[in-house]
Amino acid sequence: MERSDALELDAADPLHHFRDQFVVDDRDLIYLDGNSLGRLPRRAVAAVRAVVEDDWGRGLVRSWEHWIKWAQETGDLLAPLIGARPGEVIMSDQTSVNLYKLASGGLAAGGRRDIVTSSGNFPSDLYVLAGVAAAAGGRLRLVGTPGSSGPTPEEIDKAIDGDVGLVSLSHVAYRSGAIADMAAINAAAHDAGALVLWDLSHSVGSVPVDLADTEADLAVGCTYKHLNGGPGAPAFLYVRRDLHARLVQPIHGWFGHADMFGFASEYEAAPDARRFTVGTPPILSLAAARAGIEVTAQAGLGAIRIKSVALTQLIIDRFDERLSALGFRLGSPRNADERGGHVAIGHDDGYRMTKALIDRGVVPDFRDPDTIRFGVAPLYNGFTEVWDGIEHLAVVAETAAQERYPHQRSAVT
Amino acid sequence: MERSDALELDAADPLHHFRDQFVVDDRDLIYLDGNSLGRLPRRAVAAVRAVVEDDWGRGLVRSWEHWIKWAQETGDLLAPLIGARPGEVIMSDQTSVNLYKLASGGLAAGGRRDIVTSSGNFPSDLYVLAGVAAAAGGRLRLVGTPGSSGPTPEEIDKAIDGDVGLVSLSHVAYRSGAIADMAAINAAAHDAGALVLWDLSHSVGSVPVDLADTEADLAVGCTYKHLNGGPGAPAFLYVRRDLHARLVQPIHGWFGHADMFGFASEYEAAPDARRFTVGTPPILSLAAARAGIEVTAQAGLGAIRIKSVALTQLIIDRFDERLSALGFRLGSPRNADERGGHVAIGHDDGYRMTKALIDRGVVPDFRDPDTIRFGVAPLYNGFTEVWDGIEHLAVVAETAAQERYPHQRSAVT
Repeated sequence: MERSDALELDAADPLHHFRDQFVVDDRDLIYLDGNSLGRLPRRAVAAVRAVVEDDWGRGLVRSWEHWIKWAQETGDLLAPLIGARPGEVIMSDQTSVNLYKLASGGLAAGGRRDIVTSSGNFPSDLYVLAGVAAAAGGRLRLVGTPGSSGPTPEEIDKAIDGDVGLVSLSHVAYRSGAIADMAAINAAAHDAGALVLWDLSHSVGSVPVDLADTEADLAVGCTYKHLNGGPGAPAFLYVRRDLHARLVQPIHGWFGHADMFGFASEYEAAPDARRFTVGTPPILSLAAARAGIEVTAQAGLGAIRIKSVALTQLIIDRFDERLSALGFRLGSPRNADERGGHVAIGHDDGYRMTKALIDRGVVPDFRDPDTIRFGVAPLYNGFTEVWDGIEHLAVVAETAAQERYPHQRSAVT
Repeated sequence: MERSDALELDAADPLHHFRDQFVVDDRDLIYLDGNSLGRLPRRAVAAVRAVVEDDWGRGLVRSWEHWIKWAQETGDLLAPLIGARPGEVIMSDQTSVNLYKLASGGLAAGGRRDIVTSSGNFPSDLYVLAGVAAAAGGRLRLVGTPGSSGPTPEEIDKAIDGDVGLVSLSHVAYRSGAIADMAAINAAAHDAGALVLWDLSHSVGSVPVDLADTEADLAVGCTYKHLNGGPGAPAFLYVRRDLHARLVQPIHGWFGHADMFGFASEYEAAPDARRFTVGTPPILSLAAARAGIEVTAQAGLGAIRIKSVALTQLIIDRFDERLSALGFRLGSPRNADERGGHVAIGHDDGYRMTKALIDRGVVPDFRDPDTIRFGVAPLYNGFTEVWDGIEHLAVVAETAAQERYPHQRSAVT
């Protein structure tokens, strides 16, 4: 594959004009970290300005008349992107707090005490789930080995016994980018009498998710990665509608009350998804998150996924042609159906190489001990810049090898 | 008291120029609801624009180098306003989530199971605390009667026995504005072997708080009322420093981990106040909150409190002169030392009167069933506008009485 091929792919790209919907002042920067923090949509600039200067500045407390509906409205806007139905998704808190609420509620609903997860799950998820299981008198059971691509349905099936009330997994693994088989895992867990709680942080806005069709029970996720919702943007949660009445989460705040302005002394959980929320959402951050979701909804997840697969394939092709001989290891699935929106590339010198890439105007991210992650954002990343980003990495590795040679000799002598 | 007296008070007001630090496009609006949502500081407009357009738009993920410190830095900025020491305050989540974390951690630390609170506490606090006590196998014990001014130290003392591990109260009551005796209640609780958790939502930025001097154990609070931090601004929490190592809260997220980027599989609570945080804070909303705190810190709480007392005294004076004969009831303490930053005025027709006030360009707020609350914000409210606001209420009541007369007759006949 030549650079001219990438140029041709850009010329034929139906999403190419979406880059104009983002603030890209730094045209030379190759930003391949949208899987950590997505770029700033122009629409978010306008939305935040309006919420600050008009809503807060002039409307003041009267703006709560419309703000009060934003958590639900934004959830409904997000719902089609993850295959959920109206009323099943609501914006609330941060991802780890939502995971805590739904894991606690889900475990309590089944009357069991253990949770199964993947040992390669995002560390914050491991911490939250271990805490929830311990509080229920149970324990967190780990499946697979750290760094692996995530558990198979068979592994999950084997791990569940009568003590396991909940399986919680990331849909796309934060390290490898591997996609879990949601339908098969849901079916296996249900057969064994457990609920499944998905963390969609690395898939939402990048990989199609079919919560309703696969009969997923619960899900959480963040909006600041592929949804471009801004730093620390509010998270979302999903509860399948027939579970709303069965699940009570442990943090009983007034936003989750059936009649929040009735100010009764006793808590009564709202009949709908509001019962999974707690307190006043951060409205400024929520306005930006909504803008990001709107841009994604406008482009459509079908087109986004097609381009995402093509972009990650380009990285893998260039890995084979350029990087594999330079000491790099591919840490993501080669099969496109199993691969999410980022590609992990390992190297013993990964940390220093990431720093060198940033110095050269290429921004990926790095995960200890050795993994460089290249996230692709179909709404603003082009094929040529991805090609160039990988080429920079190859040059960094070649330069480092030349520089290291005398050092290695002196270490031997 | 005449209106000319109010004009004179404005002319002599040392904080008068602080109004220029706020966006006040609606010069005719009499905004007396800063105890629900404070006005927009000009500094917040600039801070949010910078965090969106510079930090997010251009710095992108690299801005986390400074964002990562904001929760602690903003907590340290807030600390002197509540008599806390550096490292004891940190921004995190929303008030009810923080209350949940600290109530759970505080109760667990003492190995007891019941919680004592005031029956007049903010409903969301009642819900959270009842949930925490129930989860520990205990119950929430209510002291006092709903609508009362909050418990005395003697009532608290009497309510604590060997099963009570935690006392949780609002420092300033959301309805009456009464200030609780923090020092005496802390002492009474400590004598009985319980910790005290304060909700400072209605006092922070308005009433001096001496957490360290009164040996308060735990506190939470919001920043969108008297601190002018913006709608749904992130909350804060305080844990006295010698308790940091003793308290473990139940939501174990990566922001609370001793080495958050080490990505170990096991949770290890950070040694400092970070252990009470969970996940990524909403950075846009946090930037606005910080701006609000900066304005308050600049004015100084001493000057704010002096003017706040004078403003609420003006409301009470005008209540006596103008409202008491019109069917209104004073719902706040007459003693200035016992009174926070808002005055509650009850009326059987309170809800309709609040609506009529808003139609006349006066914005207070209303709490079921009958309470109109007038919040005073010394940084942007003047004496004359408060005088005018109360005069509007008198006129509304006089008008309503005239209109209601025929209706009342027909109801009798």
